[in-house]
Amino acid sequence: MQSIQKTKATEQMSMPVRTRILAVASDLFERQGFVNTGINQIIEDSGSAKASFYDHFLSKEKLGQEYLKIYGDGHIGLIRTLMERSDSVDVFVEGWVRILKRQLRNKNFYGCPMANLRAQTTNGFDLLQSSIADLANKTIEVLADCVEKFDRSQITINREKALLTARRIFAAYEGAVHVWQLTGDASALDDIAFLVRRLLPPAA
Amino acid sequence: MQSIQKTKATEQMSMPVRTRILAVASDLFERQGFVNTGINQIIEDSGSAKASFYDHFLSKEKLGQEYLKIYGDGHIGLIRTLMERSDSVDVFVEGWVRILKRQLRNKNFYGCPMANLRAQTTNGFDLLQSSIADLANKTIEVLADCVEKFDRSQITINREKALLTARRIFAAYEGAVHVWQLTGDASALDDIAFLVRRLLPPAA
Repeated sequence: MQSIQKTKATEQMSMPVRTRILAVASDLFERQGFVNTGINQIIEDSGSAKASFYDHFLSKEKLGQEYLKIYGDGHIGLIRTLMERSDSVDVFVEGWVRILKRQLRNKNFYGCPMANLRAQTTNGFDLLQSSIADLANKTIEVLADCVEKFDRSQITINREKALLTARRIFAAYEGAVHVWQLTGDASALDDIAFLVRRLLPPAA
Repeated sequence: MQSIQKTKATEQMSMPVRTRILAVASDLFERQGFVNTGINQIIEDSGSAKASFYDHFLSKEKLGQEYLKIYGDGHIGLIRTLMERSDSVDVFVEGWVRILKRQLRNKNFYGCPMANLRAQTTNGFDLLQSSIADLANKTIEVLADCVEKFDRSQITINREKALLTARRIFAAYEGAVHVWQLTGDASALDDIAFLVRRLLPPAA
């Protein structure tokens, strides 16, 4: 694994050092976990100097927050793009499941980074935990926008109801991802689509 | 935290050493995480000797498997008892949510031990990961028994269909627990009941 990591790091040598550290750290956090990744390994694999690491990131927790921010921007952007390109909840949720399954086939899917980080930061890391909560709430907000766009049955009569349905859609996503992570059964990811259809039924 | 731990450990001094180590380890694994808990802390907090620890447990991974087995027996037993005592899916799932909320109020709920352990063992621990998968599949099996008992709409015409619905109920549980863990919003646990009702509708 370390040799793959080093090849990647070599490719990344042309990047600015900050970007390089972030790319290497993100990869390590996803593959081996935040808690199992030491700053020394990040410094070594990114070919940077210790002083340079601390110039750019004050601590491992700050680095974790930056990693989460980059993941979060992509994650929220993906849901928003899918929403804009879909004309029904079926198209939206099937697109979402398709993307997760593609990541899985490309060995580029390690579950939900929010949930993994949360489970790995039981001991301290209050700032990071608060960033995780912010991103989870942002996810529910963007899913509420989807609910408002796709609700043909008018069950979400106001923002509060849309947020409640969105929280349940988020639970369907987290749940299916965790059932996959626990059992190794990739077809569990299809349950996202199944559950979301139950939450946002087509117009009667 | 360590002083609470030590008080508990003192109370546990009358237990046989194996039980004492397991009680202390379980508590530490839940509160601060498997990966953040070192063998030395378990030995110290349980007032046992290093040699005695290794007499009873060959490794931290073996200890993790014992912890998971104890949790798993309780977890499967709880679902089975709830099933036996309930005459409808509503009674069953409301009982389940009530128990989770009570654990939360008693500050005795840290999310799903299977999912937390899984997220904390990204790096190695193949035996433990395989025990986690076994317990997840056992959970789906016992939930399939519930589905067969409570299905009034006859949507689960055979064991295969019951297992599929059970996998989705497990996803509802994992999802709601994770939404709580990510956002801190305890009412997310109610979504288990909501989603399960959508999966096992009352007879038409």
